[in-house]
Amino acid sequence: MKEIKVGLIGLGTVGSGVVKVLERNRNLITSRLGARIKLSKIAVRNISAPRKVDVDASLLTSKVRDILEDPEIKIVIEVMGGYEPAKSFIISAIKAGKHIVTANKAVLAESGGEIFRMAEEMGVDIGFEASVGGGIPIIRSIREGFVANHIEEIFGIINGTANYILTEMTEKTEDFHVVLRKAQELGLAEADPSLDIDGIDAASKIAILTYLAFGVEVKLDQIYTEGISHITPMDIEYAGNFNYKIKLLAIAKKIQGALEVRVHPTMLAYDNPLAKVEGAFNAIYVKGDAVGPCLLYGKGAGMMPTASAVVGDVIEISRNILKGSHNPVPLWIKPLGGGGQDYAPLHLKEPDEFSSRYYLRFTVVDRPGVLSKISGILGNYNISISSLIQKERHPVDSVPVVILTHTAFERDVKKAISEIDILPIVKGKTVLIRVEDGEEVEARD
Amino acid sequence: MKEIKVGLIGLGTVGSGVVKVLERNRNLITSRLGARIKLSKIAVRNISAPRKVDVDASLLTSKVRDILEDPEIKIVIEVMGGYEPAKSFIISAIKAGKHIVTANKAVLAESGGEIFRMAEEMGVDIGFEASVGGGIPIIRSIREGFVANHIEEIFGIINGTANYILTEMTEKTEDFHVVLRKAQELGLAEADPSLDIDGIDAASKIAILTYLAFGVEVKLDQIYTEGISHITPMDIEYAGNFNYKIKLLAIAKKIQGALEVRVHPTMLAYDNPLAKVEGAFNAIYVKGDAVGPCLLYGKGAGMMPTASAVVGDVIEISRNILKGSHNPVPLWIKPLGGGGQDYAPLHLKEPDEFSSRYYLRFTVVDRPGVLSKISGILGNYNISISSLIQKERHPVDSVPVVILTHTAFERDVKKAISEIDILPIVKGKTVLIRVEDGEEVEARD
Repeated sequence: MKEIKVGLIGLGTVGSGVVKVLERNRNLITSRLGARIKLSKIAVRNISAPRKVDVDASLLTSKVRDILEDPEIKIVIEVMGGYEPAKSFIISAIKAGKHIVTANKAVLAESGGEIFRMAEEMGVDIGFEASVGGGIPIIRSIREGFVANHIEEIFGIINGTANYILTEMTEKTEDFHVVLRKAQELGLAEADPSLDIDGIDAASKIAILTYLAFGVEVKLDQIYTEGISHITPMDIEYAGNFNYKIKLLAIAKKIQGALEVRVHPTMLAYDNPLAKVEGAFNAIYVKGDAVGPCLLYGKGAGMMPTASAVVGDVIEISRNILKGSHNPVPLWIKPLGGGGQDYAPLHLKEPDEFSSRYYLRFTVVDRPGVLSKISGILGNYNISISSLIQKERHPVDSVPVVILTHTAFERDVKKAISEIDILPIVKGKTVLIRVEDGEEVEARD
Repeated sequence: MKEIKVGLIGLGTVGSGVVKVLERNRNLITSRLGARIKLSKIAVRNISAPRKVDVDASLLTSKVRDILEDPEIKIVIEVMGGYEPAKSFIISAIKAGKHIVTANKAVLAESGGEIFRMAEEMGVDIGFEASVGGGIPIIRSIREGFVANHIEEIFGIINGTANYILTEMTEKTEDFHVVLRKAQELGLAEADPSLDIDGIDAASKIAILTYLAFGVEVKLDQIYTEGISHITPMDIEYAGNFNYKIKLLAIAKKIQGALEVRVHPTMLAYDNPLAKVEGAFNAIYVKGDAVGPCLLYGKGAGMMPTASAVVGDVIEISRNILKGSHNPVPLWIKPLGGGGQDYAPLHLKEPDEFSSRYYLRFTVVDRPGVLSKISGILGNYNISISSLIQKERHPVDSVPVVILTHTAFERDVKKAISEIDILPIVKGKTVLIRVEDGEEVEARD
């Protein structure tokens, strides 16, 4: 029976999961593939560090080049994470004619185009199912399942840490920092949680999905990204009054030749399936012109779900090796604004051009006439009010006024807020949270 | 630019959708594939029949052999449906060395193994994503995305007609036959609706998923199949009292070397994501040992979603043709009970061996002592009662007593019911509906 040798770079959580899946499901995999997958080398930073998984010590090396220079190794699994040196390792492996399986969203979001083009030149495969949504087969679905579709929009809850924090804040009415500390204690958030809570991880992932779905490279610094650290239990409570939940949503949508890509806390109606995605789960909603709306839901992170995706890619690439073939990398991608026979040039919207419904919480003195002042300014900017809540609060030197708008342009909303925030009757910075409302989106099409 | 010629057998709803997607998304597909897909012949029963889509009359033929014998046609799309002559056409096409894309669950459920083995011999691909769940990429997910997993269970709402009927019955408190007639008027149910409402269509689909996920061929007559025509608004209402919804569920699960495959109306807790799948939507829940629980949701039928899956398969096979490769058909499948190095022989459970929680509705005279009689018999068969509802009804010559049991064996439940149903105090046949309760399933593992 044929054997396909694999090298693993990184033996942290995901790497340990890969070892476990290959070990535990060895017979199943061998049978489904018709060949054996042999993990022949594992590169780690520190050979003597404690491990989450039993591995034969003879497999370990501290030199990545032991893998890159081993001609017997056909597939390199990169699960060390981070931008460099991971990117250099991936490029060296491709140049050595090795196929790549990676879970590295940072590298792919920033340098995906470069890496895919290099892989195509070298005739090697790149599997990256694990880079978005853990074990959820979203990459495969967009590359293959929905390939006949013009994708219209993607909405994703694709950061489990942020979703866990928002879920806990909602269910227990606790402050962001309290819940973050708990998540860190449970190992659900990193010691430096910024990638997750500031939306950067979600932005990397939506960049990868945008690349596949819309055929354009959008860099991280082009994606409007707002995290969840300013979300308060008060806003969660008001959202509930409107039958909304607050989720960190990654959004990519195409409207009349313009592409919007953004990550920010978003209010979603209770009956939106994404509003029901709780805790560390992920879900990605995709709408294609033929397939219509589709939702994929599952565990978006963690040792075993991510390893499931990594090993799935290793098996698929192994099949290709056995057949002497390889998967085309998604080379239909054009530079942003470039266009081609297939895609009209896509304009990437600036945040000012976004439009949606908005939740605005004003902090004002409790005095007659205040509301007319605020609504007057909103009206001047063509922002019409859909609902309003004004509750009595103690101490009453300042009270919140909460307004839900109809669809408006962000440009206008920002201008209105900047006028309102300097009024003497306003006692704090106005809170803005965007609202995604299925009906509005439909109506705009 | 290269061109790949495709023949289409069948120009009904799905066939018309295929023509539309190929036409409307021509540039997108050409760009993503790097080659053109040319629909060069369409076989129809009646050339002069009215069409749902504009097609060049010169493409139409009433002779399927015009497609099968055309050496230029590389891919045959079979979307005529039904068992024969579709199966013969598929086999002839394979023998002629043509790749197949089919949406035909009837043929694959009954003869999948035979067709896959023949395809492997001939070195041709078979795409059948459209056979289950319309545009939902469930076939691809199980074959590729979850390939590293031991699949533990699959629960699917995979018949949109039945789900539409149950949803309408639930929301409007209407009788089955009233809603069925409405569905027929709306084109959501066939004139002869038996395939959908009797669970046969869902059984075919779960047979295909069982094949891929558990590696065994289970024939339709081995699948316990119960339809929805006996479901009443009264049972839907009682289900609501217990916070359950009634769904037609297709279930395949493996417990300790035994496989259960069954299709029947099932009560699901409100907070089960499948309970929220309404109308003509489909959803498939899959649990793998590594990936954990995953759910895929979308439009399970209809012209465009199904065409999305068909054309997706055509594009993937075209990529393989361009690369001189082909997808391995799922030949890891062993005959039931056969086993191999990979799978221990699987025992297929008889209905008597099923176990679950049960909803039982007894129709009894309204007299003291009745309840003790019924619960006594249940107790004799080790069936313990979890909840009970006894409401006053008018006319009161008979009243319903509704019992929700803890997990019990179907064998025991059936015996208890047969004893109870002949009691003089019982005035009608007892209604039995199975309950799938996530916690119970977890607890059993």
